[in-house]
Amino acid sequence: MADANFFDVVRSQRGIRRYAPDEVSDDVVRQIIDAATWAPSGSNRQPWHFIVIRDEEIKRQLGDLYKEGMMTLGGTKAPKPPTNEPGVPPIFSDDLASVPVVVMVCLEKWPARGRDNLLGAHIFPAVQNLMLAAAALGLGTRLTTIWQHKNVEVMALLGIPDTVETMAMIPLGYPGGDEHLGGGKRKPIDDVMHFDRW
Amino acid sequence: MADANFFDVVRSQRGIRRYAPDEVSDDVVRQIIDAATWAPSGSNRQPWHFIVIRDEEIKRQLGDLYKEGMMTLGGTKAPKPPTNEPGVPPIFSDDLASVPVVVMVCLEKWPARGRDNLLGAHIFPAVQNLMLAAAALGLGTRLTTIWQHKNVEVMALLGIPDTVETMAMIPLGYPGGDEHLGGGKRKPIDDVMHFDRW
Repeated sequence: MADANFFDVVRSQRGIRRYAPDEVSDDVVRQIIDAATWAPSGSNRQPWHFIVIRDEEIKRQLGDLYKEGMMTLGGTKAPKPPTNEPGVPPIFSDDLASVPVVVMVCLEKWPARGRDNLLGAHIFPAVQNLMLAAAALGLGTRLTTIWQHKNVEVMALLGIPDTVETMAMIPLGYPGGDEHLGGGKRKPIDDVMHFDRW
Repeated sequence: MADANFFDVVRSQRGIRRYAPDEVSDDVVRQIIDAATWAPSGSNRQPWHFIVIRDEEIKRQLGDLYKEGMMTLGGTKAPKPPTNEPGVPPIFSDDLASVPVVVMVCLEKWPARGRDNLLGAHIFPAVQNLMLAAAALGLGTRLTTIWQHKNVEVMALLGIPDTVETMAMIPLGYPGGDEHLGGGKRKPIDDVMHFDRW
């Protein structure tokens, strides 16, 4: 699908929860990271780093921290027990080690002056390019931030220096079980468009 | 270019400073905003709003606030005098009213628990879709946040309620003067990729 139509790709993006065990080649990973780096950033500083994790033990420990992060949010967000149906891949948050690749996206710190919640302007466009490029190649992703509640441990596990911040953790693999790209639902755009003033 | 190839579009994105006076049709604006709404957001909450500004006087006042925002950052970021070459459109920050359309993207507030700098995870993917969709249709954009230093005045000018936050202001129009999409420069991806650990 390297010839994927832009608007088709955009409409196919969907948060994937179950990932097939099929191998994701280094070449595919490089195409996806390359697309990420074409995103804009302030002064074209390109302040991003991508940790591409395939190591089974690191993914397992990261998965444990992810689950602990969910727990800190209390009952409503607590993980459900794994379904473990034969032949159906687990939900990524139940067994992160089963996802072929996990990408941690980091942002270099710099003395930006302004609102903290606008810092994402320098990194989430790249994260979105990464996820769209994955979709263009038939792979699923999901943007996660809940591990942030165990960020100190995540930083230590991945050996991330304190000159950068962790910004997004993204499972990457072909959709598994009965999950697939496409078929998402959105509000009508007239609900979210305003003209000249709010 | 509604048949634009995904990877070509990604590589064509570039921050445009000069915008041609050519009309941007409502239909084109709707296609671009529609693409924005296919971005992911936490729990598919779709917490975005898009103010599509064509009114000349509102754009002029917004441009004045933009320039004042730049001034607050001091000398190095102070605006240069307009070039005013005959037949060359002005730089958008010198004369925002000359840009055909300006889009202000807003984020609905909700009681999210976590780091403020991760809030952008729910809005900048949509902003990136918007900018990529513009590029797919041959239009230029630029992600700006510097007006944030005059945010109280910006909110008042656009009548934005305090239940939402302003997150990005994006000029939108066909590239003008000698500016064009494509031809951007990036670091080699091996400079920003890590494997398993930092």
